[in-house]
Amino acid sequence: MSEFRTVQSWVLQRLGHQCRSPELFVSALTHRSFGGKHNERLEFLGDVVLSFVVSEWLYRTFPEADEGLLTRYRAHLVNGETLADLAVQVGLGDRLNLGGGELKSGGFRRRSILADALEALFGALYLDGGVEAAKRCIEPLLQSRVQALPSLVALKDSKTRLQERLQGVGLPLPVYTVEAVSGEPHEQVFRVRCEIAAQGLVTQGIGPSRRRAEQLAAEEALGRLA
Amino acid sequence: MSEFRTVQSWVLQRLGHQCRSPELFVSALTHRSFGGKHNERLEFLGDVVLSFVVSEWLYRTFPEADEGLLTRYRAHLVNGETLADLAVQVGLGDRLNLGGGELKSGGFRRRSILADALEALFGALYLDGGVEAAKRCIEPLLQSRVQALPSLVALKDSKTRLQERLQGVGLPLPVYTVEAVSGEPHEQVFRVRCEIAAQGLVTQGIGPSRRRAEQLAAEEALGRLA
Repeated sequence: MSEFRTVQSWVLQRLGHQCRSPELFVSALTHRSFGGKHNERLEFLGDVVLSFVVSEWLYRTFPEADEGLLTRYRAHLVNGETLADLAVQVGLGDRLNLGGGELKSGGFRRRSILADALEALFGALYLDGGVEAAKRCIEPLLQSRVQALPSLVALKDSKTRLQERLQGVGLPLPVYTVEAVSGEPHEQVFRVRCEIAAQGLVTQGIGPSRRRAEQLAAEEALGRLA
Repeated sequence: MSEFRTVQSWVLQRLGHQCRSPELFVSALTHRSFGGKHNERLEFLGDVVLSFVVSEWLYRTFPEADEGLLTRYRAHLVNGETLADLAVQVGLGDRLNLGGGELKSGGFRRRSILADALEALFGALYLDGGVEAAKRCIEPLLQSRVQALPSLVALKDSKTRLQERLQGVGLPLPVYTVEAVSGEPHEQVFRVRCEIAAQGLVTQGIGPSRRRAEQLAAEEALGRLA
């Protein structure tokens, strides 16, 4: 019981949520290395809760942004690096139940465990208090990052920059060709070739979508032209 | 006005939802080739609404399933193929506003447009009636597929099958090594090597996560051992 009370007060203090089912939060704060009920199922749920809350928020906050920009905004907000930073910010490391082996791990491994546990906490918040509880916790955490997003518009994508660069010197546009697609339908990997004939330049990009592979090939081409 | 009324009655009949803001559904049913307000922003939102609804449903329906199985279940339910099938099932093709060029397209291209429009409809449902409205539409559509999922448990993942295969003949486990990681932090591509020394067999997998790349390398190894 006292473990529940400790967690309850930690969740109230750090996430601003009065929890009804503290056992959910104990699980969320338990890495599988600790034994017992761990946080992986909650992480599965929390990952998509976070993505959902952030997507709706971006949709409403940036009514003029097209789907491509919204997707880039979301990827900028919801990634392992940001999550690990937020986990550190809420002091999650001090509350995490970790097995002996993992206690010693540092650096990347530790940051990834923290990021996963934060997602699990979002899952617990959702189950305990619905979408509203998740929003009330997630939005303040990401507020300053969302406000800083519009300055990213300046960061044009690589294909656009490559195109503008070539047009600027009167050259024809690069030609993108999908060379190979592998993997199952829902998790395909695309290999795309980018050819700038006038410069005799050919680059390749590999990514989880054709668009992404093209961007990587264009990025590579930009670097080679530099 | 009459366009709104037609859409309203179509949404009620096909998706079982009494819509308050028919203009949302007109956008959802409008491909960018048609001009005017198209469905890409709604697709951005609907994609994550669908993923959220399905994830929670799976989380509650399969309390014994671990995160890996839940992820496989979700990937099985939420992919372009299934969405295109569902779009055909609700008769979405007849209501879609398509530009002249796209009207003629068939096959894969058309199926992808249908799948995207169905996601956009889920986005519209959510904005119009909240998570509950999205659930009321999505769950009946996927009900039979969710019920059929447990039989998929038999489909063990490739790494597990490869391991069991090797153990079955008294061989040591394969060794997986990450050979290369490329791409930005949130969209990395992993190249993993799978080595079965006793058989002098080396395969490679490329995927959007280490786990996925390992699975693909294991799958390849299973094929080569066959």
